[in-house]
Amino acid sequence: MKLITLLTDFGLQDGFVGVMKGVIYGICPDADIVDISHLIGPQDVLAGALVLERSLPYFPPGTIHIAVVDPGVGTFRRPIAARIGEYYLVGPDNGIFTSAFNLAGQNGWPIEVVALEKPEYWLKEVSPVFHGRDIFAPVGAHLANGLPLKALGRVVKDPVQLTIPLPQKLQNGWRCQVLSVDHFGTLQLNIKRQALDGAVVKRVSLAGEIIQGICKTFGDKPSGSLIVLFDSSDHLSVAEVNGSAEKRLQAGPGEEVIVELG
Amino acid sequence: MKLITLLTDFGLQDGFVGVMKGVIYGICPDADIVDISHLIGPQDVLAGALVLERSLPYFPPGTIHIAVVDPGVGTFRRPIAARIGEYYLVGPDNGIFTSAFNLAGQNGWPIEVVALEKPEYWLKEVSPVFHGRDIFAPVGAHLANGLPLKALGRVVKDPVQLTIPLPQKLQNGWRCQVLSVDHFGTLQLNIKRQALDGAVVKRVSLAGEIIQGICKTFGDKPSGSLIVLFDSSDHLSVAEVNGSAEKRLQAGPGEEVIVELG
Amino acid sequence: MKLITLLTDFGLQDGFVGVMKGVIYGICPDADIVDISHLIGPQDVLAGALVLERSLPYFPPGTIHIAVVDPGVGTFRRPIAARIGEYYLVGPDNGIFTSAFNLAGQNGWPIEVVALEKPEYWLKEVSPVFHGRDIFAPVGAHLANGLPLKALGRVVKDPVQLTIPLPQKLQNGWRCQVLSVDHFGTLQLNIKRQALDGAVVKRVSLAGEIIQGICKTFGDKPSGSLIVLFDSSDHLSVAEVNGSAEKRLQAGPGEEVIVELG
Repeated sequence: MKLITLLTDFGLQDGFVGVMKGVIYGICPDADIVDISHLIGPQDVLAGALVLERSLPYFPPGTIHIAVVDPGVGTFRRPIAARIGEYYLVGPDNGIFTSAFNLAGQNGWPIEVVALEKPEYWLKEVSPVFHGRDIFAPVGAHLANGLPLKALGRVVKDPVQLTIPLPQKLQNGWRCQVLSVDHFGTLQLNIKRQALDGAVVKRVSLAGEIIQGICKTFGDKPSGSLIVLFDSSDHLSVAEVNGSAEKRLQAGPGEEVIVELG
Repeated sequence: MKLITLLTDFGLQDGFVGVMKGVIYGICPDADIVDISHLIGPQDVLAGALVLERSLPYFPPGTIHIAVVDPGVGTFRRPIAARIGEYYLVGPDNGIFTSAFNLAGQNGWPIEVVALEKPEYWLKEVSPVFHGRDIFAPVGAHLANGLPLKALGRVVKDPVQLTIPLPQKLQNGWRCQVLSVDHFGTLQLNIKRQALDGAVVKRVSLAGEIIQGICKTFGDKPSGSLIVLFDSSDHLSVAEVNGSAEKRLQAGPGEEVIVELG
Repeated sequence: MKLITLLTDFGLQDGFVGVMKGVIYGICPDADIVDISHLIGPQDVLAGALVLERSLPYFPPGTIHIAVVDPGVGTFRRPIAARIGEYYLVGPDNGIFTSAFNLAGQNGWPIEVVALEKPEYWLKEVSPVFHGRDIFAPVGAHLANGLPLKALGRVVKDPVQLTIPLPQKLQNGWRCQVLSVDHFGTLQLNIKRQALDGAVVKRVSLAGEIIQGICKTFGDKPSGSLIVLFDSSDHLSVAEVNGSAEKRLQAGPGEEVIVELG
């Protein structure tokens, strides 16, 4: 299997993603291609990094993840490829792989990063505004064909890392913030189950609302209830049962959240 | 061919669908995966059931349909798998397969349903909020690999069935309702060609408008005309030529429609 | 490889696209299917033609492009298939292939067009409102299986061609118009790099704004700047750095743009 995933902010209307797939199949006819998301907010590199982090570990070893949220396309920012454990990454060196590298660090996976410097693995003509099509898709396809990472260019020791907002410890809890909002309007906080170290969540406050206790799943409370639960990537989260916490609370990324432990 | 389809209300932004595909490829590397829809309204189980019904018969025998619109995820509702004729179904036991079972009944296809009780066919860790990833995707992949349905758990005799609103017979016609609205704003009614038994549609009234007669296709009337026609799944429908009947009539699911026969 | 692409205005919610894929896999189990776009504006044949044109050349030889933006479905308009160079086209004869035929002409690719007249290559029942499912998907799948184009029906000498708005030469520049708008709100003009013949773009005026000079890529100017650049298909374009020129200028297709050369 030669599995390649795509994550971009390109949207679905213009054919930009389809074109990348055409390029991939032209180089690696037996690839399988999976869309992770093409609805990352325009230029929202951090949001792309977070979606990639939670998706990546569910793919089989050898999968090549191409991620292109790239406001600096065609400028001096480097195009890179990397190996983290048994996965490959291809995209701009702008922090889009921050969380993937963190995940590798937490798991003790070896990390290798190289700059993409060999035009023989790109399309012949490279537009300064579409490296997804002209550099990243072909490089991903060549990796799928078995090209060694090192053949792509020199080692990069200092890939760009974004600052991901961390929670602050309080006397009896944590000062957190909303990290992202999903399709259901569930607010994902920047704290994971592990960080709570078994402590019980007593109360969560945000946007003028106080939510008591924690649930295991949505159906634990009636429709319309605001609840706190761990989401499927083990982040503490705030949801409205059969509704949208985002709309109800008018809250989004950056919103402060106080988590009190019992 | 090992064909698996996915139908969810997960949206396309967060990577939830991509993750399910990663899980499937990890278990069944030679699967082909088709998206039916991921834009079912959040928690709208009936809408998911209807989309599945009209899609299912166009897939080749052996196709495995995974459908996850699942407001009760992680609660006592059962996860199930089923065989209807030559198709397989995998998802929550909440009525999402109501129309598929009805279709099987109409066609005389044998129906077998089992509860998913064998964690050896799931991911090792099961989040109470994402059975699509942790139970349904892996079970679908194992079925694609040839696992017999019976291996998954005990037979279920009473899968949950939703009540699908039926039309009422009138003296000279039917009292119907709008069942669903498509991307073009066409209103699908809860009556099919067969139920009219060859009778001619004389007049259709809804939302204060009266539409005379019936067309074969959109281009039979000028742009902007309100028309009645049978849609591609043979449901009587109301459309605006090159426009949206939904917007024009401000009508949606549940809207009453009187169909007069000639 | 048997690569088939799909381009439609069907949207992603109703399962219409998934159904076409089911039909294709039923006839050609080893097809690979790529979505180009399903978010072409409803009935916007020209927009579909333009997206197809810029995507098509990036696919490998032999690719079969099925394009269905089809307001005349079920009326007298012909269903057609074509070969242009090493690509195949399948869809309604309503101008959706205008730009593809133009591209073929510019590249000196041979063009053959046939009417779809042989029901043995369609589904058994053909709905007058869904030729995408019942005619175009099966015909594309049969072509992927190696069926010769000529087997589908008689040669068509006069496929419908849309009028694509052309720029007008001015004393020291061009009177252009906005041809399309992408997901990022970038306005694509109806003039390409080749037409400028090396002349330097001095000034671009539209919607009451004047933009001086031309950039190579987005990152050449600070966030919020309005810029002019060649897009990834070499069309002159107007963008807002990390923003939307569409929203900023309230401009869309048809908007007049004056391009002054230096």
